[in-house]
Amino acid sequence: MAESQIHHKLLLDSHRLGRFPLCHLLLHKNAILPWFILVPETNVTDLLDLPDDLRATALSEASRISRFIKQYLNYPKVNFAAIGNVVTQLHLHVVGRKPRRLLLAAPVWGNLVETADYSTARLREITNVLEERYGLDLIR
Amino acid sequence: MAESQIHHKLLLDSHRLGRFPLCHLLLHKNAILPWFILVPETNVTDLLDLPDDLRATALSEASRISRFIKQYLNYPKVNFAAIGNVVTQLHLHVVGRKPRRLLLAAPVWGNLVETADYSTARLREITNVLEERYGLDLIR
Repeated sequence: MAESQIHHKLLLDSHRLGRFPLCHLLLHKNAILPWFILVPETNVTDLLDLPDDLRATALSEASRISRFIKQYLNYPKVNFAAIGNVVTQLHLHVVGRKPRRLLLAAPVWGNLVETADYSTARLREITNVLEERYGLDLIR
Repeated sequence: MAESQIHHKLLLDSHRLGRFPLCHLLLHKNAILPWFILVPETNVTDLLDLPDDLRATALSEASRISRFIKQYLNYPKVNFAAIGNVVTQLHLHVVGRKPRRLLLAAPVWGNLVETADYSTARLREITNVLEERYGLDLIR
């Protein structure tokens, strides 16, 4: 899947980090919390319509990101969702949450008021760790 | 898992319909759209921390509900999420959406303004179809 095949609205809000065997990996530009978006290479639009093997692969790749969020970024909780009400192309949200740092109860979609940017150095660090320890293929 | 082991906040908002091999099946009381909640029998709180086999079973049971929502209730789109910011016990949301009937873009959590109730007859119909065609074990 070329970059042009990832929906432009997903790319607009995100840093493109690389890919796993099935999914492209995006990082939402709002650095207030770790919000990753996985885009599987498929024309199926709903996660629960994916064939079992593809769904297992997609969830396995999402769990790599969940482990990164918990182990490396030290977030205790991870939200997972496949909604697709705005962009129909299938994409999986994997979002780290910290009860005491942010209002935890509200889902992130439409509710994030605070914003922050990733520095270039921070993005490079995240990307390098994901490559070295979590099997991410970088975009060259 | 006895009923008392399903978190009371989940039971408070829901009709308890029955169970699949791994998950208890609840239906949110707000009938404005079909909002099912699956509660797997596990002490793990995040979906992406579940062992692969349990995660596959949970997703397979969620996909039965997705098929029911699409095939029987004629909803074209299904949202899936495991958030757990309010109730930490692992539970999976499977929600049917119709673009022209409701504002589709907003996720359901905290955004449903309209409400409606299920009639006893409608609940019985849903439960019976889930038992006969989708393998739900009813609560006797």
